[in-house]
Amino acid sequence: MSDALVTETALHGGRHLVIRHNSSSTQTRMELAVFIPPGEGPFPCLIYLSGLTCTWENAATKAGAQLHAAQHGMVLVFPDTSPRGPAVADDEEFSLGQGAGYYMTATETPWAAHYQMEDYVIKELPGLVAEHAAIDLNRLGVTGHSMGGHGALSLAMKNPDLFQSVSAFAPISALTETPWGKRALEAYRGGQDGGLYDVCQLMASHGWAKDMLVDQGAADPFKDEHLMPERLAAAAQAAGIDLTLRLQPGYDHSYWFVSSFMGDHIRWHADRLKP
Amino acid sequence: MSDALVTETALHGGRHLVIRHNSSSTQTRMELAVFIPPGEGPFPCLIYLSGLTCTWENAATKAGAQLHAAQHGMVLVFPDTSPRGPAVADDEEFSLGQGAGYYMTATETPWAAHYQMEDYVIKELPGLVAEHAAIDLNRLGVTGHSMGGHGALSLAMKNPDLFQSVSAFAPISALTETPWGKRALEAYRGGQDGGLYDVCQLMASHGWAKDMLVDQGAADPFKDEHLMPERLAAAAQAAGIDLTLRLQPGYDHSYWFVSSFMGDHIRWHADRLKP
Repeated sequence: MSDALVTETALHGGRHLVIRHNSSSTQTRMELAVFIPPGEGPFPCLIYLSGLTCTWENAATKAGAQLHAAQHGMVLVFPDTSPRGPAVADDEEFSLGQGAGYYMTATETPWAAHYQMEDYVIKELPGLVAEHAAIDLNRLGVTGHSMGGHGALSLAMKNPDLFQSVSAFAPISALTETPWGKRALEAYRGGQDGGLYDVCQLMASHGWAKDMLVDQGAADPFKDEHLMPERLAAAAQAAGIDLTLRLQPGYDHSYWFVSSFMGDHIRWHADRLKP
Repeated sequence: MSDALVTETALHGGRHLVIRHNSSSTQTRMELAVFIPPGEGPFPCLIYLSGLTCTWENAATKAGAQLHAAQHGMVLVFPDTSPRGPAVADDEEFSLGQGAGYYMTATETPWAAHYQMEDYVIKELPGLVAEHAAIDLNRLGVTGHSMGGHGALSLAMKNPDLFQSVSAFAPISALTETPWGKRALEAYRGGQDGGLYDVCQLMASHGWAKDMLVDQGAADPFKDEHLMPERLAAAAQAAGIDLTLRLQPGYDHSYWFVSSFMGDHIRWHADRLKP
């Protein structure tokens, strides 16, 4: 905690923190936002994983999640999507490098030095948040949007003891099948171990004993090429996973879509993270 | 309507429009956002006037207003804060020129050619919105933040037949007394007619027969020099105006503050704009 800088703002009767700290996972300075609801903890805690190009700020300012979290007495955590800085490897393409960590463990040069977002979320984030907010580490949920939806679903299935609830907004469902995902797997993992990072394959190999909520905009321009909800539905059915997949008519891929269904997702997690 | 370009996105069961049109008031291309709730109109309509440096986008994306408006069946309108473009006069200072129209009628060169935001809001905006959304022009409210709070309070008092309800977030209460306001009045009006644009003076000269809701963050760094809520309270008391002024402990001047009390304001207007 000694290395962390924190700013604090009043929000919905609770507190909005921005935390900057030295990450042992990424070996960089990382920034995240944490919303603490009014009242006394320990609170359940929901981690929101953002999509390509985002920092903590996009969802924290545009998803309208804190209002619902205040009503349900839930801590929200908004981490960044990658390590950042002039010393960190990057790429011209928005779908690779800074802003595009895929919540993955990079093994290849030059990415491996800092692109350790899987460890960051799984091993470092819960303890870091617990230093700043009264959370119950046994009541942890994860959600996310697009690349962050991929992150939420894949990390939950690989860490069922850590996460008691999971949902996603327009997730990338099959990383090994999309142009974005193939390029990221080639760069970060040398094309190896795609099955550890593909939600549909993880459904078959790891499964998920609880239920899942996924919303997908029917008018989302990335739906067919990058998100593939029909593959997700088929993989869940084949694996016997209790997936509620809602195709939302007229909705696109933006935060207009995310904010429209955020109340449902916060309630979903609150119901499943009761003490 | 023939000159308007409209994009439409699904939001909270309703529709979020961005409208670009040729304004007869400002003689420029203007852009605004309109939220239309689910259901059948005619709906009451609330105009939200933004603060310095903002476009429609800041409040539309960060204030969380549409969720509440959807619940109350209310249309929301987010106009820009000034005319814009390379042919429009500007100033290096953020508190003057583009992004800083003060909802005022400019009379001085070079501002008068385009800085006609008072006419834009009062004479042009309601009819324009009515072309795109089923609103009841007899159920119109106005609110705003900072410079936009000044706009909401001053325009309501000068146009009591147009607006049936008014509220504000951290409004500039005395334009003739603040550094920002003095400079704007000097530029746009040659230092004349400050009383037509000073909320406290308008309380004395015009009054307001209904009630008013104002929220002000107690930790707002602009409070004492630029906003002056204590002057507002005194002017309302002297004029016998039914002002509910709430000083909110710990809150600052940001959209974290605005979003925290937006639900209260939307409900306030909805209650007063019932058919």
